[in-house]
Amino acid sequence: MITKNQIKLIKSLSLKKNRDKHNLFIAEGPKIVDELLKSEITLKTLYSTSENYTSINRSVLINSMELKKISNFKSPNNVLALFEIPNAKKIDFKSNIIALDEIKDPGNFGTIIRLCDWFGIKDIICSENSVDCYNPKVIQSSMGSISRVNISYMSFDDVFSKNLNLVASDIKGTNINEYKFNKNQVIFFGNESNGLSPKVLSEVRNKITIPRYTEKIESLNLASSVSIVLSEIKKKITEM
Amino acid sequence: MITKNQIKLIKSLSLKKNRDKHNLFIAEGPKIVDELLKSEITLKTLYSTSENYTSINRSVLINSMELKKISNFKSPNNVLALFEIPNAKKIDFKSNIIALDEIKDPGNFGTIIRLCDWFGIKDIICSENSVDCYNPKVIQSSMGSISRVNISYMSFDDVFSKNLNLVASDIKGTNINEYKFNKNQVIFFGNESNGLSPKVLSEVRNKITIPRYTEKIESLNLASSVSIVLSEIKKKITEM
Repeated sequence: MITKNQIKLIKSLSLKKNRDKHNLFIAEGPKIVDELLKSEITLKTLYSTSENYTSINRSVLINSMELKKISNFKSPNNVLALFEIPNAKKIDFKSNIIALDEIKDPGNFGTIIRLCDWFGIKDIICSENSVDCYNPKVIQSSMGSISRVNISYMSFDDVFSKNLNLVASDIKGTNINEYKFNKNQVIFFGNESNGLSPKVLSEVRNKITIPRYTEKIESLNLASSVSIVLSEIKKKITEM
Repeated sequence: MITKNQIKLIKSLSLKKNRDKHNLFIAEGPKIVDELLKSEITLKTLYSTSENYTSINRSVLINSMELKKISNFKSPNNVLALFEIPNAKKIDFKSNIIALDEIKDPGNFGTIIRLCDWFGIKDIICSENSVDCYNPKVIQSSMGSISRVNISYMSFDDVFSKNLNLVASDIKGTNINEYKFNKNQVIFFGNESNGLSPKVLSEVRNKITIPRYTEKIESLNLASSVSIVLSEIKKKITEM
């Protein structure tokens, strides 16, 4: 059984202001929920149509009509859970860090979180006007990696003031295959439509570029760019 | 002005069987439509709320209410055009080719088409049960690259019978950074959820793997994998 107030709360969590107010986010489907249950993230309540979850504290058995009411999916998939938003951890500036300048597309962001997990990148920094990492679409496309990658929102001025090794992915820069990557640097990526903001372009002097093999295409998908750069960095610093 | 029959035709093109019947596909928004207008693909009819397109033959000026009726977008963007589906060209087996085994996600597919364009890959082969490349969501995420990459649907048996240099991206294989790529090979990628089909796994003996730097994550997003492999191949064959 699910109450009207519970339905109201869950529906309200599609908005950031309500996620912040209640300190909760939504995850759906066994794949992601099971990964989060194994992580350090704290479960608030789990709603499921499956007996598989009844042994879990704070789980509620519901019917498929009820799941349909609270799900963001066209075809709800067994389980929806509310988790507490964890506190962002202290950023480890001694490792490689990804910095996202006004990222807006939730699917792209989730894919990038998953990529950082794969390549052992522990921290992502986002400019304050970026999409919220607890947006349900980000959670879905991050596939559980959100529990293993630390995401911090901050003014990039705080990064620029730290005297760090900075590099930005841009259309005109050093070929990534020739660039000397280090074990600790902050790598900036721009917004999907507009690229890097003027502030980042002027503050970050080292620019890198993924070589292009045709003239007619203007840009690469953001998550594709991050994947290629991360693969190259990890290869080079592993060979060091 | 747009007629009822025209609206009916456009709406019907969201289904593959109707696209095949009329030999037409839909593109929306100035960015993609303008790229396709510059390409070899033939325009059938263009519907726009903007005076910018009135000089084009086969263009129809409509109002925003009419555009809303035919658009697949929540916020329609000035122009929707119908183009003729071009004939697939002969595959150039002397270059590198991407083979997609049951790709299902249109957004992923569009991103891969864009990646192939960026890296100068001219041919994509899809197994017959893959998503249609003229699906409106594929067209949108391919960002115009569909006009520069040749996509063919075929039974993979026809590829296996050709005595080609085959390699498949898999979870257990040679590290891509150590693999000796050639100037002509067919590189297979599996389905988003299930990976490579048993047939491909058994027929393609050379397996490659993107190195992973954590244990807890199971898989990488398909388009991310393609981007990393293509970047590595192009770098190696350029250095040859």
